[in-house]
Amino acid sequence: MQNNVAVGLLGVGVVGSGVINLIEKHQEKLAHQLGCGVYVKSALVRNPDKARDIGADMNGTQLTADPDAVLGDPEIDVVVEVMGGIEEAREAILKAFAAKKHVVTANKDLVALHGGELHEAAERNKCDLYYEASVAGGIPILRGITDGFASDHIEQLMGIVNGTTNYIMTKMSQEGLSYEAALKQAQERGFAEADPASDVEGLDAARKMAILGRLAFSTYINLEDVEVTGIKDVDPKDLEYGDSLGLTMKLIGFADFDGTQVEINVQPALISKDHPLAGVKNEYNAVYVYGEAVGEAMFYGAGAGSMPTAAAVMSDVVAVIKNMHRGVTGSQFVEPRFEKQLKEPEQRVGEYYLRFHAKDEAGVFSRISSLFNDLDISFKQILQNPLEEDDTAEIVVITHKTSLKNMQNALEQLEHLNQVQAIKSFYKVEGDADA
Amino acid sequence: MQNNVAVGLLGVGVVGSGVINLIEKHQEKLAHQLGCGVYVKSALVRNPDKARDIGADMNGTQLTADPDAVLGDPEIDVVVEVMGGIEEAREAILKAFAAKKHVVTANKDLVALHGGELHEAAERNKCDLYYEASVAGGIPILRGITDGFASDHIEQLMGIVNGTTNYIMTKMSQEGLSYEAALKQAQERGFAEADPASDVEGLDAARKMAILGRLAFSTYINLEDVEVTGIKDVDPKDLEYGDSLGLTMKLIGFADFDGTQVEINVQPALISKDHPLAGVKNEYNAVYVYGEAVGEAMFYGAGAGSMPTAAAVMSDVVAVIKNMHRGVTGSQFVEPRFEKQLKEPEQRVGEYYLRFHAKDEAGVFSRISSLFNDLDISFKQILQNPLEEDDTAEIVVITHKTSLKNMQNALEQLEHLNQVQAIKSFYKVEGDADA
Repeated sequence: MQNNVAVGLLGVGVVGSGVINLIEKHQEKLAHQLGCGVYVKSALVRNPDKARDIGADMNGTQLTADPDAVLGDPEIDVVVEVMGGIEEAREAILKAFAAKKHVVTANKDLVALHGGELHEAAERNKCDLYYEASVAGGIPILRGITDGFASDHIEQLMGIVNGTTNYIMTKMSQEGLSYEAALKQAQERGFAEADPASDVEGLDAARKMAILGRLAFSTYINLEDVEVTGIKDVDPKDLEYGDSLGLTMKLIGFADFDGTQVEINVQPALISKDHPLAGVKNEYNAVYVYGEAVGEAMFYGAGAGSMPTAAAVMSDVVAVIKNMHRGVTGSQFVEPRFEKQLKEPEQRVGEYYLRFHAKDEAGVFSRISSLFNDLDISFKQILQNPLEEDDTAEIVVITHKTSLKNMQNALEQLEHLNQVQAIKSFYKVEGDADA
Repeated sequence: MQNNVAVGLLGVGVVGSGVINLIEKHQEKLAHQLGCGVYVKSALVRNPDKARDIGADMNGTQLTADPDAVLGDPEIDVVVEVMGGIEEAREAILKAFAAKKHVVTANKDLVALHGGELHEAAERNKCDLYYEASVAGGIPILRGITDGFASDHIEQLMGIVNGTTNYIMTKMSQEGLSYEAALKQAQERGFAEADPASDVEGLDAARKMAILGRLAFSTYINLEDVEVTGIKDVDPKDLEYGDSLGLTMKLIGFADFDGTQVEINVQPALISKDHPLAGVKNEYNAVYVYGEAVGEAMFYGAGAGSMPTAAAVMSDVVAVIKNMHRGVTGSQFVEPRFEKQLKEPEQRVGEYYLRFHAKDEAGVFSRISSLFNDLDISFKQILQNPLEEDDTAEIVVITHKTSLKNMQNALEQLEHLNQVQAIKSFYKVEGDADA
């Protein structure tokens, strides 16, 4: 039997409370796997005197408002950072490494922004750094990618990695709600924050995609490399048209690597109802991985919440303690293999959905068709409906595969066409059978 | 840079060829991760002189018909067993351990039958034994369960773990084919063997469930503990009724552990179309895991095939080589925590689907209802259709939750009821929202 391992907790909020609960509840399982006990010796909080009910016995955990009481305690081997925020958390983690403590964090913002620096500090100090909980909560996706696909080449990732936006889009699509009404419902049911900006603008998803892309493609992706479009301007009309064309709209994090160049973005996209991601509803998350050898794979589960996130944190704590016992901490790092090169619009290929209004008169569609034809863009599906306004038709087209550059050219030319009154919306279409 | 690692291959069939291909193709990625090269030094085959085109350069791999040329070669550190079968493979693996070689196997039949013995031999010799490819091909499900859920309590597993039967059931359900026609189509498209017995009788799925159940519940489950019903007697009529009631039929491997007792079986079952497993189509596999902390999670992907299975084998080879370099081989074993206790029918609770024929006359349904009522079984859904035969009605009911024992009693009493002409089918219903 090894000595019991003391954990220091930074933050006792939603996730921190979950960690204390899990450690208390599964003492026996942990001891069985690890050959030692695990306990939370001290925890950093803003106000140690505040009464708190975390649903578990604190088992003697010391609460403190002084980071050094945790980071300077030589008995603590593993620091669990679940306080959130950037600068304070970064400093605390760097201090932990300097004190030769291993770190487990759930902080996607921090890892997305400063992952490289943190990895270097960990490696320099022969410490472990794990952050499974930072992407898709309870789904063991980072392990899945790094260990499960160790000898495969990951060509593509698509992720529904933000529960708030997936809840909103599910309600818009299933119940025909407007964006505003669906957001309100999400807030009432606890799936959206009072200030939902970072979720609905796609920033939260972008951070997770940066982390996923780095690990999947072995290249250092910065947060600013991820092109982001949020869901605030999504018009229920496009969900309706999508539905009639066999497509569902989701906020999709997309990342693709052809061996040389990377494309990475987060945007609302229409996805075939036959695609495994299309069935991912409400607050659930999923990451779809296309590996050269493995083909299609998908990991599905709860992307947030106290207990799922705490379970992911604890899976990392278990990994760290196993490494400690084997004397192999600090050995999980693999330098990125590739220099990053982002794809230009010329190289970004996809199918596209386009909705626009045009004059409802003879010869218009033929004029528009020849515009696309001249750019070598062909149509897969076309819908044309007369609108109530006089002489106006609403036209929806889905293209065959073409480059984004080509589509941008088409959009520009369409805008200058006399017969076209307004371009209403433009989305990528995912999940074609021949992807 | 470490020394290159020599792998010995037992079998160059579908999976073995995939392993040679992957090692050739991803030399660079492997070297980058491992700090050493990996090569297949020799391979056991029935006939070394047979001309073979495996789609890759053999790179000097020696072919031999003599197992000892592989197992007795002191340069070989890792033996990959992909020959299949039981006795020969078992002996070869035990010999490999005796010679202090690590073993990676894709052999579910062997691991399901002799997993305990193989684990003991590996541990005794401080060797690694990994078998990710034995369950659900390319899906990293064993790692997901053991590492990802390390501090969680897994309450339930449901798996679609046999691609042949899932293909057949998908075709029966989507195209209304009979079992025989769907099997024929599966055979023509390479998704079913000429002799499909072990797939369609559920034995292949049972082997995988035994392996999954052991790892998930930390208790030693024997193959004979898994109750098995195949799909040969599935009547398309029940798929139709299921469809009209919002249910899809799948061959489901079910395993449940309440902390004390285990239920484990493989049987065709009706599952709510809202359940993530319901969307798993054709030859795809998926394992759904319900963890106390994590809640719902699902792992989806290709359950078979040369390259997906080879990728899973290679993820194990990478893990073994990392362990070798860190000097921690033979340390992944954890003794089962629990004595096995199987649930009795009294303790097996579920919802059930029942179809039977009864006389179409006044008072019959009331008589039947009171039979169920006396047993405390209540109905969730009822369908009654007159049949073309005179005076006969076809009745379909779905019950609320009740014990299997209760349902068995109900079936027995129904059979003795004058008004009931025939009990046509009886299935478990999975995926209730309040599960």
